[in-house]
Amino acid sequence: MSHNFFSKALDDLIYMALTEDIGQGDITTQSTVPETAMARAHLVAKEDGVLCGCEVFERVFHVLDNRIVLRFLAEEGALIAKKQILCELEGPARSLLTGERVALNLLQHMSGIATATNRAVSQISGFPCKIIDTRKTTPGLRVLEKYAVRTGGGANHRFHLADGVLIKDNHIKAAGSIIAAVQAAKSRVSHMVKIEVEVETLSQVEEALHAGADVLLLDNMSIDVMKEAVQLVKGRVLTEASGNMGEKDLNAVAATGVNLISIGALTHSVKALDLSIRFL
Amino acid sequence: MSHNFFSKALDDLIYMALTEDIGQGDITTQSTVPETAMARAHLVAKEDGVLCGCEVFERVFHVLDNRIVLRFLAEEGALIAKKQILCELEGPARSLLTGERVALNLLQHMSGIATATNRAVSQISGFPCKIIDTRKTTPGLRVLEKYAVRTGGGANHRFHLADGVLIKDNHIKAAGSIIAAVQAAKSRVSHMVKIEVEVETLSQVEEALHAGADVLLLDNMSIDVMKEAVQLVKGRVLTEASGNMGEKDLNAVAATGVNLISIGALTHSVKALDLSIRFL
Amino acid sequence: MSHNFFSKALDDLIYMALTEDIGQGDITTQSTVPETAMARAHLVAKEDGVLCGCEVFERVFHVLDNRIVLRFLAEEGALIAKKQILCELEGPARSLLTGERVALNLLQHMSGIATATNRAVSQISGFPCKIIDTRKTTPGLRVLEKYAVRTGGGANHRFHLADGVLIKDNHIKAAGSIIAAVQAAKSRVSHMVKIEVEVETLSQVEEALHAGADVLLLDNMSIDVMKEAVQLVKGRVLTEASGNMGEKDLNAVAATGVNLISIGALTHSVKALDLSIRFL
Amino acid sequence: MSHNFFSKALDDLIYMALTEDIGQGDITTQSTVPETAMARAHLVAKEDGVLCGCEVFERVFHVLDNRIVLRFLAEEGALIAKKQILCELEGPARSLLTGERVALNLLQHMSGIATATNRAVSQISGFPCKIIDTRKTTPGLRVLEKYAVRTGGGANHRFHLADGVLIKDNHIKAAGSIIAAVQAAKSRVSHMVKIEVEVETLSQVEEALHAGADVLLLDNMSIDVMKEAVQLVKGRVLTEASGNMGEKDLNAVAATGVNLISIGALTHSVKALDLSIRFL
Amino acid sequence: MSHNFFSKALDDLIYMALTEDIGQGDITTQSTVPETAMARAHLVAKEDGVLCGCEVFERVFHVLDNRIVLRFLAEEGALIAKKQILCELEGPARSLLTGERVALNLLQHMSGIATATNRAVSQISGFPCKIIDTRKTTPGLRVLEKYAVRTGGGANHRFHLADGVLIKDNHIKAAGSIIAAVQAAKSRVSHMVKIEVEVETLSQVEEALHAGADVLLLDNMSIDVMKEAVQLVKGRVLTEASGNMGEKDLNAVAATGVNLISIGALTHSVKALDLSIRFL
Amino acid sequence: MSHNFFSKALDDLIYMALTEDIGQGDITTQSTVPETAMARAHLVAKEDGVLCGCEVFERVFHVLDNRIVLRFLAEEGALIAKKQILCELEGPARSLLTGERVALNLLQHMSGIATATNRAVSQISGFPCKIIDTRKTTPGLRVLEKYAVRTGGGANHRFHLADGVLIKDNHIKAAGSIIAAVQAAKSRVSHMVKIEVEVETLSQVEEALHAGADVLLLDNMSIDVMKEAVQLVKGRVLTEASGNMGEKDLNAVAATGVNLISIGALTHSVKALDLSIRFL
Repeated sequence: MSHNFFSKALDDLIYMALTEDIGQGDITTQSTVPETAMARAHLVAKEDGVLCGCEVFERVFHVLDNRIVLRFLAEEGALIAKKQILCELEGPARSLLTGERVALNLLQHMSGIATATNRAVSQISGFPCKIIDTRKTTPGLRVLEKYAVRTGGGANHRFHLADGVLIKDNHIKAAGSIIAAVQAAKSRVSHMVKIEVEVETLSQVEEALHAGADVLLLDNMSIDVMKEAVQLVKGRVLTEASGNMGEKDLNAVAATGVNLISIGALTHSVKALDLSIRFL
Repeated sequence: MSHNFFSKALDDLIYMALTEDIGQGDITTQSTVPETAMARAHLVAKEDGVLCGCEVFERVFHVLDNRIVLRFLAEEGALIAKKQILCELEGPARSLLTGERVALNLLQHMSGIATATNRAVSQISGFPCKIIDTRKTTPGLRVLEKYAVRTGGGANHRFHLADGVLIKDNHIKAAGSIIAAVQAAKSRVSHMVKIEVEVETLSQVEEALHAGADVLLLDNMSIDVMKEAVQLVKGRVLTEASGNMGEKDLNAVAATGVNLISIGALTHSVKALDLSIRFL
Repeated sequence: MSHNFFSKALDDLIYMALTEDIGQGDITTQSTVPETAMARAHLVAKEDGVLCGCEVFERVFHVLDNRIVLRFLAEEGALIAKKQILCELEGPARSLLTGERVALNLLQHMSGIATATNRAVSQISGFPCKIIDTRKTTPGLRVLEKYAVRTGGGANHRFHLADGVLIKDNHIKAAGSIIAAVQAAKSRVSHMVKIEVEVETLSQVEEALHAGADVLLLDNMSIDVMKEAVQLVKGRVLTEASGNMGEKDLNAVAATGVNLISIGALTHSVKALDLSIRFL
Repeated sequence: MSHNFFSKALDDLIYMALTEDIGQGDITTQSTVPETAMARAHLVAKEDGVLCGCEVFERVFHVLDNRIVLRFLAEEGALIAKKQILCELEGPARSLLTGERVALNLLQHMSGIATATNRAVSQISGFPCKIIDTRKTTPGLRVLEKYAVRTGGGANHRFHLADGVLIKDNHIKAAGSIIAAVQAAKSRVSHMVKIEVEVETLSQVEEALHAGADVLLLDNMSIDVMKEAVQLVKGRVLTEASGNMGEKDLNAVAATGVNLISIGALTHSVKALDLSIRFL
Repeated sequence: MSHNFFSKALDDLIYMALTEDIGQGDITTQSTVPETAMARAHLVAKEDGVLCGCEVFERVFHVLDNRIVLRFLAEEGALIAKKQILCELEGPARSLLTGERVALNLLQHMSGIATATNRAVSQISGFPCKIIDTRKTTPGLRVLEKYAVRTGGGANHRFHLADGVLIKDNHIKAAGSIIAAVQAAKSRVSHMVKIEVEVETLSQVEEALHAGADVLLLDNMSIDVMKEAVQLVKGRVLTEASGNMGEKDLNAVAATGVNLISIGALTHSVKALDLSIRFL
Repeated sequence: MSHNFFSKALDDLIYMALTEDIGQGDITTQSTVPETAMARAHLVAKEDGVLCGCEVFERVFHVLDNRIVLRFLAEEGALIAKKQILCELEGPARSLLTGERVALNLLQHMSGIATATNRAVSQISGFPCKIIDTRKTTPGLRVLEKYAVRTGGGANHRFHLADGVLIKDNHIKAAGSIIAAVQAAKSRVSHMVKIEVEVETLSQVEEALHAGADVLLLDNMSIDVMKEAVQLVKGRVLTEASGNMGEKDLNAVAATGVNLISIGALTHSVKALDLSIRFL
């Protein structure tokens, strides 16, 4: 939205990444490439996927050297094909060479997540169901990774532990029962916060509905049990399917009628999308 | 080695990760679990692999709450089996629940890298050849990821652009020739720095040897050409095989006689090792 | 809850405050008080109120000098009376003198907020209605100020703009209508987030209910209109009274049946509670 | 004075305040207001007072989004009247809405201090006496609060403990006597530092004069005793009246002939000036 | 004075210095010295001088590794002789080797300043005159360098531009005259601040006295003129001799009767005292 | 090379230095010089030497106030003569006066190092030998100091402990022998790192050659022994002369045939070059 405030947080991340990658200086480039040499290059796809992270890619070069000019030929979130030219870069040769690795590391990681999310979303097309992420993200990159999930067509679960109540089995054990746990949460958190409860059996579904939960997380249920759970709920609250969903038949899961499917693997097991920069 | 200085950098990373994951507080746990409740839990393997990141895992809990006690039942770098109990945890229930996600995110990521490295190392056993990493790492995690590669049995390439000269095709173009590039580097960098040159053909191998390179990076060569390159070199300098090595027959590559095989996928396409914490 | 993580954020604030107040050193104390001199002192109330900030008060002295020992004679959140001794302090005289001002500045500010909140809560006793705060807080102190509101018997509204949707008149204008705004929010924010709508008339109340709002903010309504609004709502959603509530008859407001009364003055116009440290 | 150095410290404060208020993003505005919508608004006074903090108010919007344009219709330090339009704002609607709260929180706080200071200064008009502040400020805001005191017509006491010696009763006790304390300070602090001594009785006034104090702080003296103290001093050193001056008849205090009156309430018990932003 | 607050600032400096010197790790020591090896060493003087920085020296090792134990055999500020053993160190061999350079860099620099100061102080023994420093210090080290000056027997001038008024020729030109400059300063700065005026001629001395200056800086005066200036002043204000004092006959300067002699070379041209660590 | 990334690290250092020197503000200048006054000034050499730090000098003024314009009349690295005008400055008088001290402190320090290096380089002209620095630098200024050595015609040794192996006597003792130490290092550090060994005798020279060292540090050898050592080496590895080289006849040392002479005094005992700013 705005121009300074939000880009500052991103710039801080990029500055850290550049410092980590450059150290006291790119001694190879500084000793072999003349300071005044200019260069042109293409960002090229080496496999099919979803492009994600264009703004980040551009900021890496601008944080390093604001004389570099980029012209994107593909849009953020677009499906891209192997061999497609995605962006033209032009500027001081030294800076293009020094910034290449960090820019690609981020773009390939984000595009990898968007591509995997897009694949999952495709598998449930036609169902009124959303693919969502989890808190199983890479430390330091949560904002970018959750953005990549949205770019791939998914939606986000909680950003962190403070912005929603998710009562899991250990909370239930500690509180004594689902009802006790929900009531304890309702009486202590802000009136703006929703309460989700993790359930594994149909009787827990009933107990959570009775307790006044706003959302149910159906954990590790078989397709058949999940179907029954959705029928029990009758649309009164939202339902989320969870539990190694990265390895499940997502179409069958969506067919149960759940509203949301959360997949940890989207962010904890990222395969970088193969992209490269070719100097002209 | 030492106790304060090196742990501070790690603690800063962990504090950042906890802040990212917790926000203003774990409102679920705070409202459902009594402040004085104590708990015990097990860290369990859900698939086979190499354990890596025990110290990081422990520090996450200690940065959060130094009353938590951990007892590891498996050693750093050990081969672990599905269902194996890796660590016993005991302490305030709230802190165990609040810290669980960040601790696992880091441990699963590092163990995933160590496991993949170990698999690559196994494929070249018997050859005097090393598996090494690249600069294709996750921004902010390079130190931990390169450590995980070593834990899996691999070795490290450059940490950043300042601690070694690696002359690639674009540097050669800018300098005019391999010889010009190597001479430029030699005259300008410290006498303590080695010079590696990327070569794609046998005539480039000869030119690089003639120029006085200390290491040759054999880029995208076929097995046959690589073999000839190694014979040309005759052990005078080190040779490194590179180029989508994550998808190659590593045994065949090692059989060419190269000294090093560098694999970007070890760190740019990490599959988290499946581990979980079970509360008792 | 936990011991290290949460106290670090507080310690950073305190360190900043001490740096601001001490500069390069307390030259008066260093030149007139011997380094080895020990002292004892009492924290004394100079007017009635609610004590809030004991942990912060203690941390100021411990961040400055961990040899200082404090023993509180009154509990956090307690009603305290003029002349009451609240805490005994003992330790190096220099550190007690140097830390006195920052420790009192924070304790008096927080106790002032808790006292004002307590006064408001008392005015609506008997009604099932809560006193809540707003985002009109002092920059840098929001966590402490919202804590002081809770200590005084109130509850908290949103912590920041990311943890709840509050649609005000300008959002409605931009979206076209209340219904359009609520639908836009529902389709774009996480499934865990609640949606509150600011309404000024009864027809807006009906529109917001129809749109599916979770909470209604009744802004600047007369007591009579507010009463009608509450009757229209029939308990289906929560209602919050707002608009210069710091100057209203809170008992009359609560009597309308609203669930929440938000008061900006609790944190934007704080009168410090008069407390002092007397050296013995 | 200069443009970069001094505005950086302010920008850091503002960035912290925006981060505290916005969190991961203003989800309400982002989902209901189109990214390209522009808006105009007025800053309006809702009560009489002294305007203070215009530069800070403007920087908040510029740190957030440098496309916002502000045109002030009233000057910094001006007496303003209820309903007066103080500033016209124009720019992206999203940024205006997101920045509104932090900008007002700071402006209302600073204007509240300037207004209270101005009221105190008015009460002693005609006397060669200054209203000054104390170290009883809000942690993190001392620079802004002391600036607001100057804007309201007052002057500043010490900024922190390192830039002046102020010997209070506990320092005197520790040193043994006023003379011993003053001599200890004189022998150890820089030759550029002045020495003020807190006195409560006329004999202490004499002792402090004899010891060579540069300034006397007349603490909690009755008007009559204060008058005698001033006569004793005969203009040889400066005199400062202190002790709950926020509740005293300042005209009577100034009439004693003291040079300075310090009032802690100016900054420890701030009543925000009522200002608001109206969208057109 | 206190234990946590003040040591934190020092620890931050030391941590920065260690990071600068160690980078990603002391690869020599880590590969050649066993992790469990213990070592003992002596800090030895290789020339005569004044020892300064013992606490800093010790903190370097403790920040690196808190298992290292130091026992000082000479006191801070003591005159030390060539070959004298100053401190015994014992602890993990790796940490002793890794920390050696940073610890010595700081200790030798500070001892160099103390030694030079002590030499200057010796030259004016018998005169009621102090050797003082200037703002010509090494960026980042001012606190330590001014401390070293005090340790060598000198005193400090202003710490920074905010804690004293020093009106130089350019300020006088800008203000129009010495009197105008002094009056402007008096009317605008806090009542706690003293005013020093730089003068080069006897008529300027008279003008500055007339203007009400608190201190006179006698700049680049010959010994004879300085003597006349001191006689003109008659002890009414302090006098400071300045201008390449590092190369002057300090005894002759002190004999003029000036109160202070400021020497920039004490901190801008430091000769490190030769100290070394010998492993046993 | 690039414009943003590298200048940020420098700007952070300068901002720290300005904060250290200015504190809450230059109260002298603010009260005596009108805000709108403009001024012109000359940077003048007061002794012969090598100019170093022009970019740093310029950045100090630009970080403080980007309206100041500088025009250099001498180039970075140039030999300059007493009374030579080096730079013309023009801009707001206040900012020129406030920034003067920090700008000069850095420029004089760096020029002092470049001048001393240049003097050493001159002494060995005609020999194929380089003057190099050590890790005996001022904490926080290593990058600038090593740059100044290069500017004076020298070269750099290791930047920090991670970018090269330098095995000293204590490492040899711990490892058991030179051969054991070199082998341990070779097996554990990256293939890109060179290994230097400190030797004091001719038999150590032979042992180090045999062990496969890449560089030999000839420590504290007499000229005759050094000559023999160089003959033993026969150009197979690089040789570095070390040990109080600041006090040696460098021409005689270079005549032994060593490749490098390292001098700690270049950076640990800097004599500031005398430069000043004259206002016109």
